[in-house]
Amino acid sequence: MSTGKVLSGAGLRGQVAGKTALSTVGKTGSGLTYRGYDVKDLAANCTFEEVAHLILKGELPNAAELAAYKAKLKSLRALPQALKDVLERIPANAHPMDVMRTGCSMLGNLEMEDSFAQQQDVTDRMLAIFPGLVNYWYNYSHHGKRVNVETDADTLAEQFLWTLHDKKPEALHIDVMQASLILYAEHEFNASTFTARVCASTLSDMHSCITGAIGSLRGPLHGGANEAAMELIEKMDNADDAEQKLLGMLERKEKIMGFGHAIYSESDPRNAVIKEWSEKLANANGDTKLYDVSVRCEAVMWREKKLFCNADFFHASAYNYMGIPTKLFTPIFVCSRLTGWAAHVMEQRADNRIIRPSADYVGVEPRTVKPIESR
Amino acid sequence: MSTGKVLSGAGLRGQVAGKTALSTVGKTGSGLTYRGYDVKDLAANCTFEEVAHLILKGELPNAAELAAYKAKLKSLRALPQALKDVLERIPANAHPMDVMRTGCSMLGNLEMEDSFAQQQDVTDRMLAIFPGLVNYWYNYSHHGKRVNVETDADTLAEQFLWTLHDKKPEALHIDVMQASLILYAEHEFNASTFTARVCASTLSDMHSCITGAIGSLRGPLHGGANEAAMELIEKMDNADDAEQKLLGMLERKEKIMGFGHAIYSESDPRNAVIKEWSEKLANANGDTKLYDVSVRCEAVMWREKKLFCNADFFHASAYNYMGIPTKLFTPIFVCSRLTGWAAHVMEQRADNRIIRPSADYVGVEPRTVKPIESR
Repeated sequence: MSTGKVLSGAGLRGQVAGKTALSTVGKTGSGLTYRGYDVKDLAANCTFEEVAHLILKGELPNAAELAAYKAKLKSLRALPQALKDVLERIPANAHPMDVMRTGCSMLGNLEMEDSFAQQQDVTDRMLAIFPGLVNYWYNYSHHGKRVNVETDADTLAEQFLWTLHDKKPEALHIDVMQASLILYAEHEFNASTFTARVCASTLSDMHSCITGAIGSLRGPLHGGANEAAMELIEKMDNADDAEQKLLGMLERKEKIMGFGHAIYSESDPRNAVIKEWSEKLANANGDTKLYDVSVRCEAVMWREKKLFCNADFFHASAYNYMGIPTKLFTPIFVCSRLTGWAAHVMEQRADNRIIRPSADYVGVEPRTVKPIESR
Repeated sequence: MSTGKVLSGAGLRGQVAGKTALSTVGKTGSGLTYRGYDVKDLAANCTFEEVAHLILKGELPNAAELAAYKAKLKSLRALPQALKDVLERIPANAHPMDVMRTGCSMLGNLEMEDSFAQQQDVTDRMLAIFPGLVNYWYNYSHHGKRVNVETDADTLAEQFLWTLHDKKPEALHIDVMQASLILYAEHEFNASTFTARVCASTLSDMHSCITGAIGSLRGPLHGGANEAAMELIEKMDNADDAEQKLLGMLERKEKIMGFGHAIYSESDPRNAVIKEWSEKLANANGDTKLYDVSVRCEAVMWREKKLFCNADFFHASAYNYMGIPTKLFTPIFVCSRLTGWAAHVMEQRADNRIIRPSADYVGVEPRTVKPIESR
């Protein structure tokens, strides 16, 4: 089809591919809102369950609604035995995002979404189960331990840390995870969300949409920047060393992850929030090296390149202070972004047309098949 | 982002989302070409392995290349034990597309694509393993039988039928499967292929791209039309009964699957090919009822609605004549379209920009978080 409208720019950049009531990204060059609320306001005043309720159901819950929602999510944490069996067969050297993709897909075999009337329920089940799912695999494959995922954790933030470390986490760590899950929850038509919407547009089931989105988030151009930031800062001995190494990298034109953003032009509103939590963790930890290194990196990148930290950069030190292995950073992103993905699927379903663009043909002209002897 | 260009039509219809050298769809209202060759020419003169070679590597193979490619694919059929274990834990009432999605995703854990240099190899592995994968699950879950997937089948077409029925298939059936796999192999920027390309645009791995594409093909607006066609024709007692029932359905404005196409305006070039094979199967079978019913449906739909049969309609009777259970129709589509998906992933990777469109915001205006007591 070369009859379609040819648009400027690859990757559909700046092209409107649909409508959403879920979020605005960079409307003023720096802002992020979920259903009208500034993400900083939400991160300062809510738990992740409240924000999930907002994104999925349209409004922040009142006290009774929140209690009911938390009770529901708490009741849905158990891993089916067949899913545990699958997780136990995934080796320790697998990519944790492949584990989540497979776990989500397997769940769809065991608890199929038979009709769209179940879309909220299957989403809540995934929200409840994902933290335990990845940590069950992690603990089994890395430590030979079948961790109990039916914990007494009050929230999903606590559940993630509890199932990872197999013990009740500190209050400060839970607060940081709340904020982190809120910051990553939704981000308009990014590539993983758009994947979920394209899949949803065929009227496929929720598990297919989320499985596909996990696969897209796995890509190094999308998720994984916080892991790359960790690999960067853990190489540095102190702030001065960070400055020297970073200047060397800039001189050699090496790629530095965790800075700048495709949509934000002035700053990433999520950075200030997680940076503050990283500082608190550093002080509580008594070893501020990673934080100091990160602060210096921020200053150098701004001074040299006018590049600001995005959401990912200070997440690296924050997660590390909480004892989270680097390879589990992007799976936390999944546990959070699931809310945005599922809400976009619901939105697509409510006003659907199959997403089927055209392509500009640049291949060979018509030709005929020759017998194999004369090729 | 409401600053993006607003385009007419939902679903990106008629909008160019990228370039491809792989196929043209409906350039003259009815044609389909793979790398310049008419699909009818390919279906009449090639095996599926030749077409897979064409789509994935750019050219039809000569005799030596074909022999080498077939030998390679034949050597890659074994299912890893961990994958068998997973398949054995998926219940018989699961959706076979969910089985394929999960099997593909699990394979990615066991045999990860570590670098894009492996993209042809991991694709070949999937091509070789998919027929046995779905049939291993089918035979185990439905008949309690662990079917041997390391058969002596010469081709993938034969391998599918052999692993399904656990015996060497008839020559006619193999020929039909060759044609069927060729017809479904590639179709430009349809929703599942576009899903694979969006995923690829994050530079994610091949298994993620294919897993996501399977999830999209699962949707009833995309794959599954041949299954729906089967459900339609198996209700009909003979050609006259078909006419009566179809007229009743049209009068009640019920949805009739297997007719018309989003892109083709005059006819679907794949229909004539599979229709001819369906007739041959009917005659060989000695019971032509399903074929006769299908022919009458075609005539009625054209007379009443000027709607032509698409690729799916005569596939229903053809597959049924070969003893293929209806629920496995769309998985065959996967075994075939994998070639197109993987070739599009390779094409996207070779000239990539992350696919990240914008959305038109239609949500609430900015607001501030109220304390939970006053919500």
